Amino acid sequence: MTFTHLDNNLNPTMVDVSDKAPTKRTATAEARVRFPSTVAAALRDSGLRSAKGPVFDTAIVAGVMGAKRTHELIPFCHPLGLESCRITIDLDGDTAVIRCTVSVHHKTGVEMEALTGASIAALTIYDMCKALSHDIVIGELRLLAKDGGRSSSALQATQ
Amino acid sequence: MTFTHLDNNLNPTMVDVSDKAPTKRTATAEARVRFPSTVAAALRDSGLRSAKGPVFDTAIVAGVMGAKRTHELIPFCHPLGLESCRITIDLDGDTAVIRCTVSVHHKTGVEMEALTGASIAALTIYDMCKALSHDIVIGELRLLAKDGGRSSSALQATQ
Amino acid sequence: MTFTHLDNNLNPTMVDVSDKAPTKRTATAEARVRFPSTVAAALRDSGLRSAKGPVFDTAIVAGVMGAKRTHELIPFCHPLGLESCRITIDLDGDTAVIRCTVSVHHKTGVEMEALTGASIAALTIYDMCKALSHDIVIGELRLLAKDGGRSSSALQATQ
Amino acid sequence: MTFTHLDNNLNPTMVDVSDKAPTKRTATAEARVRFPSTVAAALRDSGLRSAKGPVFDTAIVAGVMGAKRTHELIPFCHPLGLESCRITIDLDGDTAVIRCTVSVHHKTGVEMEALTGASIAALTIYDMCKALSHDIVIGELRLLAKDGGRSSSALQATQ
Amino acid sequence: MTFTHLDNNLNPTMVDVSDKAPTKRTATAEARVRFPSTVAAALRDSGLRSAKGPVFDTAIVAGVMGAKRTHELIPFCHPLGLESCRITIDLDGDTAVIRCTVSVHHKTGVEMEALTGASIAALTIYDMCKALSHDIVIGELRLLAKDGGRSSSALQATQ
Amino acid sequence: MTFTHLDNNLNPTMVDVSDKAPTKRTATAEARVRFPSTVAAALRDSGLRSAKGPVFDTAIVAGVMGAKRTHELIPFCHPLGLESCRITIDLDGDTAVIRCTVSVHHKTGVEMEALTGASIAALTIYDMCKALSHDIVIGELRLLAKDGGRSSSALQATQ
Repeated sequence: MTFTHLDNNLNPTMVDVSDKAPTKRTATAEARVRFPSTVAAALRDSGLRSAKGPVFDTAIVAGVMGAKRTHELIPFCHPLGLESCRITIDLDGDTAVIRCTVSVHHKTGVEMEALTGASIAALTIYDMCKALSHDIVIGELRLLAKDGGRSSSALQATQ
Repeated sequence: MTFTHLDNNLNPTMVDVSDKAPTKRTATAEARVRFPSTVAAALRDSGLRSAKGPVFDTAIVAGVMGAKRTHELIPFCHPLGLESCRITIDLDGDTAVIRCTVSVHHKTGVEMEALTGASIAALTIYDMCKALSHDIVIGELRLLAKDGGRSSSALQATQ
Repeated sequence: MTFTHLDNNLNPTMVDVSDKAPTKRTATAEARVRFPSTVAAALRDSGLRSAKGPVFDTAIVAGVMGAKRTHELIPFCHPLGLESCRITIDLDGDTAVIRCTVSVHHKTGVEMEALTGASIAALTIYDMCKALSHDIVIGELRLLAKDGGRSSSALQATQ
Repeated sequence: MTFTHLDNNLNPTMVDVSDKAPTKRTATAEARVRFPSTVAAALRDSGLRSAKGPVFDTAIVAGVMGAKRTHELIPFCHPLGLESCRITIDLDGDTAVIRCTVSVHHKTGVEMEALTGASIAALTIYDMCKALSHDIVIGELRLLAKDGGRSSSALQATQ
Repeated sequence: MTFTHLDNNLNPTMVDVSDKAPTKRTATAEARVRFPSTVAAALRDSGLRSAKGPVFDTAIVAGVMGAKRTHELIPFCHPLGLESCRITIDLDGDTAVIRCTVSVHHKTGVEMEALTGASIAALTIYDMCKALSHDIVIGELRLLAKDGGRSSSALQATQ
Repeated sequence: MTFTHLDNNLNPTMVDVSDKAPTKRTATAEARVRFPSTVAAALRDSGLRSAKGPVFDTAIVAGVMGAKRTHELIPFCHPLGLESCRITIDLDGDTAVIRCTVSVHHKTGVEMEALTGASIAALTIYDMCKALSHDIVIGELRLLAKDGGRSSSALQATQ
């Protein structure tokens, strides 16, 4: 097994994609934010209208902005101009399920962008709910699917 | 239960901390990256020296830089000048355990900084290992302890 | 009249505030986005619930994030850690009225932070409505009040 | 009328441009900074050489840098690599007239980049003159022309 | 000799300054950009007025903005709010001599901020002159003086 | 001699590359960090394993991240998506020799990206060693080679 991000001297390095052809790449990641029941209930009903609206709006905005900045955060990610970044958030029982799908025509995949977008959205929800409880856990951040490039497929996230 | 990040009209808002007194605040967060066994083995032994060294060095650097930028990523986090940010990463079986401890003297806590630092370190490890397998899952990002401010305590992360 | 941002050789320069005492500073700025009537109507009523909600939520988030980054955008603004940034947006006839109030304890005022936050919120509204019409004008960005420091006062924005 | 930046559930979203063809896009925006007469006079004549030079140089630099960062500031703007960004500033009576023209070959227009560049230049002028007076108003930020894509034309900015 | 930026396991780390007292810190760094004679001459006289003005103005703006972002660029630099950053540039023969002096009240010194500001100013001059020649060398970036903290003194940069 | 970064009125400006054809561009820059002998010795041997490893790993990470942000730092650099950025660091006697090679397919060259990456790596080494001595000098930052575009060639860095 070879680490593509280490050179022959085991120094960290960016992968050279300059000789690859650009193709359409898509990836979808999922993050889950698990709330204590009281917090989930507060999100569902908070007076005249649900608190979910502005909290999830804020998380979507932060997640999309975070996905655009992936290459500033993850040292060896290539900068690339996202052509689409769609984030949805559903409250499923006491768990907020965040899905982030990213597309681009480029020489490299967008898994990290999808994962980063989902992470930042999850952290934003945590931030906006943490005054209610610190027993919130961000769990199970994983890649659901990637398309384009060498290894297109829905992933079997079996672990 | 009241959302501190929503105003009376349920619009998202930053919390006003201008009238609080600065005190020393510390927080520790933990993230776990679970690898397939083949990937964990590759990290442990990759020829003359372990691949863990440069991979974890890179993740520590990225995590500290990410923690410093928390307020750029999480919309309503206050900007604050971290005085310490220590990240350690241990490979425990097939799981990398990342701990990020942040300290500051300020009017607000540093939970989000610790969580963001741990998240970015975890995403960086994922990025550097993803060519080996996409069956990597970032799980169980949680706050371990916070100190200073209203609610000092080791958290019972019982969920 | 002396330009504080030019040195003796008329080169641009940052003002030295190192010997000033920190005090509480507050500033409020206002921006106005004038819509064609059809666009203002669309914001008010867009099916089951008003489109205003998510559009203004997004603008508030962007404005607060922009205010926090003022010193990265305006060359000679000092970096300072905002302690409060409150943005409200009201649809008054065909005009969105944005008010941004910023507070900090620091050696310099926060006028530019308030103005930048209002500007970025206005640009975000423009962006989200521009597919409906390009006859949108962002007008009348001005400071409404500043407090703390040498020249506290409600401003007579008479121009 | 449909908001392209809201999805079916009225959540904010980025527009998907992945299936569009890149073409050359150009846009020009104008901002106006209105000074009290004393400030405009000070800009024109400030000793041995005009203060306008370094003040407007600084505003041009800040405006171009701001235009390049539009996608970091406006949540749903696509990242795109500006191929040209030209800012001119003329002092017309007591008003600084800022024009910002941006070009790119891409799948989406550059109106927001032109508007953002003009805004940041205007805010920079404000910052460098505000010690002389706070009766400065940034008014009339509008799009003058856009070219390329669906709706090329000089705009009738009639409002 | 101990590396303060490596922990007991030789992993990279930020220095913990949380228990230090803030004092006034100042540092001055110098960078030198050596031009071929033809380029230096072109900077001195370029038609009606010298090209030096706008080139050096731009470099000053970029250097100050770069100094403010030192902690985003250098992994273990603490974020700190610069209270003063003064850059001067003199054309001495065929060499541009850049001096950058930074001040802050903080728990840690500002050497890196002064060095980074001088570096970014030097790179900006290089960029604006490189169409004339690539035989430009940025040499001798060093610290001239630091004040405040443990080791105040004018440095004997004897190497 | 004409300054491409000044317009007809000698105002600073970005070069318009919109009508150029994209080609593969590569550039290599070198920076040298000269240490006192005691510091070079400490880097070579610092207990159980060399301190060079994590110090140079950190510098490589910072240099690559800095190269990606060149257009945010140098006012008139075009944003471009680096396809490769390789940094190597060798300790040659008492001098760390940093080489940074950058590649992209674009309408403009990557000299500034290579120079910026080498500079930030050099500053990072300085930061991590400065507690040992301030008699460290960053010298001789120059372009070694560029390829693609008008003037491909190994440069004779004769100055």
